[in-house]
Amino acid sequence: MTDPRPTVGMVGGGQLARMCWQAAIGLDVGVRILAARSDDSAALVSPHTLVGDPDDPEVLVELARTCDVVTFDHELVDPAALKALEATGSAVRPSVDALRYAQDKAYQRASFAAAGLPVPAHVVVTEVEAAGAFAREHGEPIVLKRPRGGYDGRGVWRADDATVLDTVWRDAAASGQVLVETAVPIQREVAALVARRPSGQWVSAPLIETVQRDGMLRELVVPARVPDRATRAAMDLASRVVDLVDVTGICAIEMFWTGTDLVINEIATRPHNSGHWTIDAATTSQFENHLRAVLDWPLDTMRATSPAVCTVNVLGTGNEDWPTTRLAQALEVDGTHVHLYGKRPRAGRKLGHVTATADDVHTARERAHNAANALMGTEEAM
Amino acid sequence: MTDPRPTVGMVGGGQLARMCWQAAIGLDVGVRILAARSDDSAALVSPHTLVGDPDDPEVLVELARTCDVVTFDHELVDPAALKALEATGSAVRPSVDALRYAQDKAYQRASFAAAGLPVPAHVVVTEVEAAGAFAREHGEPIVLKRPRGGYDGRGVWRADDATVLDTVWRDAAASGQVLVETAVPIQREVAALVARRPSGQWVSAPLIETVQRDGMLRELVVPARVPDRATRAAMDLASRVVDLVDVTGICAIEMFWTGTDLVINEIATRPHNSGHWTIDAATTSQFENHLRAVLDWPLDTMRATSPAVCTVNVLGTGNEDWPTTRLAQALEVDGTHVHLYGKRPRAGRKLGHVTATADDVHTARERAHNAANALMGTEEAM
Repeated sequence: MTDPRPTVGMVGGGQLARMCWQAAIGLDVGVRILAARSDDSAALVSPHTLVGDPDDPEVLVELARTCDVVTFDHELVDPAALKALEATGSAVRPSVDALRYAQDKAYQRASFAAAGLPVPAHVVVTEVEAAGAFAREHGEPIVLKRPRGGYDGRGVWRADDATVLDTVWRDAAASGQVLVETAVPIQREVAALVARRPSGQWVSAPLIETVQRDGMLRELVVPARVPDRATRAAMDLASRVVDLVDVTGICAIEMFWTGTDLVINEIATRPHNSGHWTIDAATTSQFENHLRAVLDWPLDTMRATSPAVCTVNVLGTGNEDWPTTRLAQALEVDGTHVHLYGKRPRAGRKLGHVTATADDVHTARERAHNAANALMGTEEAM
Repeated sequence: MTDPRPTVGMVGGGQLARMCWQAAIGLDVGVRILAARSDDSAALVSPHTLVGDPDDPEVLVELARTCDVVTFDHELVDPAALKALEATGSAVRPSVDALRYAQDKAYQRASFAAAGLPVPAHVVVTEVEAAGAFAREHGEPIVLKRPRGGYDGRGVWRADDATVLDTVWRDAAASGQVLVETAVPIQREVAALVARRPSGQWVSAPLIETVQRDGMLRELVVPARVPDRATRAAMDLASRVVDLVDVTGICAIEMFWTGTDLVINEIATRPHNSGHWTIDAATTSQFENHLRAVLDWPLDTMRATSPAVCTVNVLGTGNEDWPTTRLAQALEVDGTHVHLYGKRPRAGRKLGHVTATADDVHTARERAHNAANALMGTEEAM
């Protein structure tokens, strides 16, 4: 009998690809990594890496040739190249049409608004005067976003007044259109995490609280500290989003809770930082469910296995120490799980994360922060 | 700053090495696999494989050259070659002296008996007449074991009477000495799982019940279904064993519970099948703790995260189907975790395992058996 074991092609070799590969080992699923560099996080641990440019249609075809399905570690891929790949008959999951919601913030806002989903008041402009007019109509502060290519706070600027607007405009408009939005008064940020099969069958994790600093996700708390009605509304919104987007695989829906309302911030149509806690503290990890979803296999629940979970990202501090030098100190903290990504340290770079479980949120947060601080050699307050 | 990330050399490329490597990815620890064949279970998923003979002293030195510590996926390694490696100053953990207890059943029985640890009545003989005399003195049935090289029921024969003894003797004595023991009247088989650092600091998992069939481990149940006093006695014995053996890394101590007494059966000085449930259902997995122990890093607890856990091994049925062909059916069973080893199917070969968690033992067993049966295409009773 021939070997029936499937292979998933992964566009991108970052930590998400690395953790997908780690999950794939147990299912005996092959993962072929398309990495930009041979020292990308996933390429370091994979025996099946193709180094190449993900925007090159020929490279994508070469990847797909030996894979049963192609999926993604990041959405920064040329849609035309992916459309060409889809046209060859290759299974691309999520589809190019689904991916567009994550790739193009202007498209996402317009589509979600048209579907009656709550998004911030917004406009797409090319002139600073139009941005100023929007600010006068809707009130300051406003937020300027490049529709494409941003991540971890890059490609986003906040303008509290007209003077700041003039200062940041040039950067924001460097690649043409600018998405201008009202700044939502945030009480908590939350994320819904859904895994969905091509048939539309899906499972979700409990609502996740995300704590951002400098536009970058720093911490997760599960369950999210918001009222029950906010949780119910968030899960309802998430179900409408994944059906509209018709996503296959993991989808993370990031939302703002204002204290009275939920507003959709961004979505990711791939495993997401907000789901990292599921590796150690959920019945099934987002990485395993992503693989199961894109292979059209049955999903399993992503229930929390502990009353309280906290995940803290480990960032480069700028002193270029590998977190490994302090790993033994971090491992002294009971009840924590360390995940390092093998990436060369650089200031602000995501080098890993720590997940802690406990009977209460305070203890889980304390443990995760203690271990993350140990790894970073810092003493950041919770 | 130079890259401080450590590399562990792993002698053997089986599923234990594979699951160690899977755990190592999160800690950003490199694992260099010394595999006998390029399609060994771990070699298939590792970017750092050395294919060679583990009994060749030069191959061991080549492995150790780029590793911080050398450890083991199996104990079937020539002690002289390992002694030579230790003599070069390489860190070998567990040490050759500790490994000997697992390699040589006659040595283990003699040492444990001398230390006052409970082992079956036994004798080492080279003539069938001496085995017969032992049977007459201690009563039938007796068990014959080759002191070295056996695993999964191989190298073990049971003789219920003198006729059977005559039949099996030739095989048992093929390599010289035979360890002859009384057959212990077993009510339950249990295993204690300990992770231990070079300093002697150690942590243990809850007592595990092991269910054997045809001399091969088929199923685990946690917690073990034995009286509390048996559990306490087993953990006490385990602590005496690991101190005597002076083991570094994971040590599994397999014991027989007769209903009134505990008797030591075998020990393994490496990650062990009895600890597979820890990947999905303990606070720390045996594979992570093995790496932490051999690197002399702090250990974490291996507490069960669920009231009841059951693991069932997935064996080759002889029809050469890859279990992957039936993976989708197995994944339909909620609350289970599938681990496949990538090994070519062959009758009786361990191809994977399934771990299920539940609030009660019956449900956990039902789930694990259902998923394992789905993978094997069988309908074995629990």
